[in-house]
Amino acid sequence: MDEARAARRRAGLVRALRPRAADSPLLDLASNDYLGLARHPEVTGGAARAAQEWGAGATGSRLVTGSTELHARLEAELAAFCGAEAALVLSSGYAANLAAVTALTDTTTLIVSDAGNHASLIDGCRLSRARTEVTPHADPQAVRAALTGHDGRALAVTDSVFSVDGDAAPLRALAEACRAHGAALLVDDAHGLGVLGDGGRGAVAAAGLAGDADVVTTVTLSKSLGAQGGAVLGPARVIEHLVNTARSFIFDTGLAPAAAGGALAALRLLRREPERAARAGDVARELHERLTAAGLTAVRPDAAVVSVRAPSPEQALRWAADCREAGLAVGCFRPPSVPDGISRLRLTARADLTSDQVDTAVHVITATAPVC
Amino acid sequence: MDEARAARRRAGLVRALRPRAADSPLLDLASNDYLGLARHPEVTGGAARAAQEWGAGATGSRLVTGSTELHARLEAELAAFCGAEAALVLSSGYAANLAAVTALTDTTTLIVSDAGNHASLIDGCRLSRARTEVTPHADPQAVRAALTGHDGRALAVTDSVFSVDGDAAPLRALAEACRAHGAALLVDDAHGLGVLGDGGRGAVAAAGLAGDADVVTTVTLSKSLGAQGGAVLGPARVIEHLVNTARSFIFDTGLAPAAAGGALAALRLLRREPERAARAGDVARELHERLTAAGLTAVRPDAAVVSVRAPSPEQALRWAADCREAGLAVGCFRPPSVPDGISRLRLTARADLTSDQVDTAVHVITATAPVC
Repeated sequence: MDEARAARRRAGLVRALRPRAADSPLLDLASNDYLGLARHPEVTGGAARAAQEWGAGATGSRLVTGSTELHARLEAELAAFCGAEAALVLSSGYAANLAAVTALTDTTTLIVSDAGNHASLIDGCRLSRARTEVTPHADPQAVRAALTGHDGRALAVTDSVFSVDGDAAPLRALAEACRAHGAALLVDDAHGLGVLGDGGRGAVAAAGLAGDADVVTTVTLSKSLGAQGGAVLGPARVIEHLVNTARSFIFDTGLAPAAAGGALAALRLLRREPERAARAGDVARELHERLTAAGLTAVRPDAAVVSVRAPSPEQALRWAADCREAGLAVGCFRPPSVPDGISRLRLTARADLTSDQVDTAVHVITATAPVC
Repeated sequence: MDEARAARRRAGLVRALRPRAADSPLLDLASNDYLGLARHPEVTGGAARAAQEWGAGATGSRLVTGSTELHARLEAELAAFCGAEAALVLSSGYAANLAAVTALTDTTTLIVSDAGNHASLIDGCRLSRARTEVTPHADPQAVRAALTGHDGRALAVTDSVFSVDGDAAPLRALAEACRAHGAALLVDDAHGLGVLGDGGRGAVAAAGLAGDADVVTTVTLSKSLGAQGGAVLGPARVIEHLVNTARSFIFDTGLAPAAAGGALAALRLLRREPERAARAGDVARELHERLTAAGLTAVRPDAAVVSVRAPSPEQALRWAADCREAGLAVGCFRPPSVPDGISRLRLTARADLTSDQVDTAVHVITATAPVC
């Protein structure tokens, strides 16, 4: 442990927690609160009311005392919104991914996993004991090749929007590759829900795959919906299977009522104000355009994440610190949290940013940029 | 999937969610709300205020925007209460166990794991890629034997109070066995915190092991503290190591403020009213005494869980259903959620049960008992 710590220090890769104040004056382009709903009074009110009405906790596993009518309502509305037959809410997106991957596979299954997938999908693959083949990033041909020749159950696994670079997966082509080989497709739509698709129904809906019998989707309640938790969406028989077999669902306390109530309030708000979804994408595209016009290297955003390259971990850290000094919070992704070893600033384009705030963000990021 | 479903139906082992109403009239002996704090106004008030002040969600990983001063306050007070140097709060006890096991081990480590350990510890072992040796239940001699001859890092892993039968682990003897071989000890005190030890400081404190350099503890915020979440308690260097390496911490959204606020309010209430802890144990012992006096077979409780044997999964299910019919919610543990294949009713002795409620519970359970 001490050796690992010393190595982190030498490499400049030490992470420390930096607790923020409730009234932090920083302009936030670092969170995953894409629609700016985490502090919306309807959402915090929904959370507070749920705590008062249902209690501060769910008090047990969803299979014992942890299922409330509030959970059932959230599951029904979430499934209807995303176009799935059924939904199951878990205490986190991480838990939802572990549940989906492990319950959909066994030791005879071949998992085909994108090289850029989120850590929670990777941990699901590790926990599943299935054979996992990692394919090059966003490469349906490679998925097709990996599935060819495998005789038996297979599952392809992908993020819909990759968390580090904000690029989208070719979902339709992936679904076709899976169907050609009788494989199922699991899509983590954590960064698509609330941003992509008609009124924010997500990337799976946008690709015309919602409700399909061979597609299972996971989402989080902690990003666009501003609360906490995750969910698995899919055919009712898949959800029944998860209820009966998914260890990260069965052996976990149910999601706290406040988180379920907050997410439900956010979902209803999004249904009423669908323009919030498109606005997040618009802000992302504007940020990308202005930052690249200023000479920075950034990935064209497919959703609400804008990833800006930094020359080194040290310079990324310095850049983020300089932004913070100037009043702007940005994400700083460095090894080992990035699959390709490239350090970057990660900006999130909240739907509720004003033009002035976007101006400020662009000004601060370009003014503090390291000379490349 | 369909085969597994048919097999579940044939074996009578189908699980279905049963959402409860906010005003459910059932007497609850099924939840893990040991101190009856989940719906205490101070705790729900703490949760509601935190949602209003901090937002419905933490908005990101604890390493990005997900750490608030509220999390830091909870961590400091929890560590001080339990006698640990430092604490780290995660979104669930399941996540805390994955974090602790995986961060404390590598591929060269030997893990020695009790046969009765909770699924989240088992999944932590699976995810760790370390070699795991499972020892007979609550057997320090077996732990000593497993550690003998292993040259290098080793970690013994145990529940403090086993969730199914409610029996306690021999923590002092386990710590001695570990020390004799330079191994570390990880204790999941999910069912000990709030019930055992001086004022509910937990089983690790009760065993005189709190604050020791070679002992790491995990707890949940969703049982005695009535909220949601988990925590790892231990030396500051271990906590720093987790912050930098534990994937279920780094790649997860921080615990929702409402859950942190609820748990903090519960912790403060417990400090002010330490007699709640002892009362839970008293109720458990009374339940055990009266049920065994009536001819039932139950495990002598070491904490607040009373486990009553049932002759078969079907009869356990029927017994629990009959109790429910009579207004009493009890847990029903059946395969595959029990390590030994034995079905049982699982009763939790809440500290806030009145004498009348205990009378009712004993009456209903004995009146509905299957003829063995």
